[in-house]
Amino acid sequence: MTQEPHSTPSWIAVDWGTSHLRIWPMDDDDRPLCRIDSDKGMGVLAPTAYEETLLTLLEPYIQGREQLEVICCGMAGSRQGWVEAPYLVAPCAPPSVDTATRVVTADKRLDVRILSGVMQHAPADVMRGEETQIAGVLAAEPEMDGVICLPGTHTKWVSVRAGQITHFATFLTGELFQLVSKQSVLRHSVATEGWDQGAFEAGCHAAIKSPHGIANALFRLRAEALLSDLDPIIARSRASGYLLGLEIEDMRRNWQDKTVVIVGENEIARAYAVALQSQGAETIVADAEEITLAGLRTARAPKT
Amino acid sequence: MTQEPHSTPSWIAVDWGTSHLRIWPMDDDDRPLCRIDSDKGMGVLAPTAYEETLLTLLEPYIQGREQLEVICCGMAGSRQGWVEAPYLVAPCAPPSVDTATRVVTADKRLDVRILSGVMQHAPADVMRGEETQIAGVLAAEPEMDGVICLPGTHTKWVSVRAGQITHFATFLTGELFQLVSKQSVLRHSVATEGWDQGAFEAGCHAAIKSPHGIANALFRLRAEALLSDLDPIIARSRASGYLLGLEIEDMRRNWQDKTVVIVGENEIARAYAVALQSQGAETIVADAEEITLAGLRTARAPKT
Repeated sequence: MTQEPHSTPSWIAVDWGTSHLRIWPMDDDDRPLCRIDSDKGMGVLAPTAYEETLLTLLEPYIQGREQLEVICCGMAGSRQGWVEAPYLVAPCAPPSVDTATRVVTADKRLDVRILSGVMQHAPADVMRGEETQIAGVLAAEPEMDGVICLPGTHTKWVSVRAGQITHFATFLTGELFQLVSKQSVLRHSVATEGWDQGAFEAGCHAAIKSPHGIANALFRLRAEALLSDLDPIIARSRASGYLLGLEIEDMRRNWQDKTVVIVGENEIARAYAVALQSQGAETIVADAEEITLAGLRTARAPKT
Repeated sequence: MTQEPHSTPSWIAVDWGTSHLRIWPMDDDDRPLCRIDSDKGMGVLAPTAYEETLLTLLEPYIQGREQLEVICCGMAGSRQGWVEAPYLVAPCAPPSVDTATRVVTADKRLDVRILSGVMQHAPADVMRGEETQIAGVLAAEPEMDGVICLPGTHTKWVSVRAGQITHFATFLTGELFQLVSKQSVLRHSVATEGWDQGAFEAGCHAAIKSPHGIANALFRLRAEALLSDLDPIIARSRASGYLLGLEIEDMRRNWQDKTVVIVGENEIARAYAVALQSQGAETIVADAEEITLAGLRTARAPKT
């Protein structure tokens, strides 16, 4: 999408995460006029910096307006963010503007609402941003009974039924893989990119079969590199397989005989699809940006 | 031990690891005169810097001598070290001077030999330094039939029988714990020190029972910190328990109904002892320094 600064948006959709900020000015038909990407994520912003960040990026759209409606999901609503938007408690329907938190801005042209995240008491878990993607998946399939996998640094598995988030689980897997492959002794033996599907699937199967041995299996990659020049791309794929295999197996009762929707099409999302398929699961892949927009659209105009 | 520079050593025992260098000038009765500690480990030394490092630290002991015998174990014998000392292949007896690699030094007063490490073909594994501690354990108990646990960043479990290293396994557990508790999102929720034995044992049991869920269990520590102010010392102990529990269970067939000797008395060694005892194993704790010295002594004067 290219930016068309002279178009007049009906409202502004915002996904404000820890490391990224994405803004879509939306037209009267609820379609994005363009996308504005910024690295001004929560991680680099003081609470007082959010309004100015938004005004700067929205300058072409707010000129001459009396008011501009902004619907925002993600970490901007966390305690360390712009304004804290309290969590809803699962089981619950994905949050909408009905439970959003209004931000008091100095510039009165801004009409900003931040959507709630969702928490779970037992086992303890939290999400901020993903609940809006769940709303997006459910917008297309309101009666879905299954699990939505949201791959990332902290992958989430969200079970849905009858329009509700029934329960969810977050895994540190992606961050573990980054740490192991880039910061541990394995960094000398593991490629930073490249993919071998056979090695990945072999890693998945090995970890499912011998889950307790994960820390030994990882060290063996280093030993094989020293003793027999293990290909760093094989090592990377096998390490990823070990970690994802554990997670897939742990979630088996959630995805077995159910619909699995994977939100995303990047390398990590593809790895989840491969791992699930190798275990006999049927997966549907959804475009993350479209799903986020559908979620923000639904959250702004809930059907209830 | 205090340094007595005027004593005359019979020989010099050296443990030259990645991050540390320990030197013991030994008297005629094979007892250490003192210990010299240095941070000039392999990690910070170019191959050409080893000789000078040794001469500087040994200066009070080499003055006026024609020759000084130095027996060295550890990473100084690796490819990136001083001189590569080829691996022996397990199953094998712990290496001695019979298979050591002689270092050609510019200063002819130095008579340096580096002990071999041990490798294993299948599954691939390597050790450098620990084999000398195995020699030390076997010096006191030549007929030991059991497993020796050497806790550390990369803990090793070494099975011994009839004076031989029969097989061994290395675990990335210690490094994983460091990365997870200091570099991942958990760093905000996990104390850097402190210990709760109940939480540690609960973590062990949880991981043994649900090994595939390790990455979810770890994330839940973060969620519990956000939602219910989980005590950071509890979080640290539980995280440590999760990771050690997996390892202990993976090694069960090696330690069950066998003698387990744990080499070391620091916090991590104590954690292994607690975890093993909670699973019904009987453990013997050995002093790491004494064991290393016994190993270097035995390697220098093998009984065969």
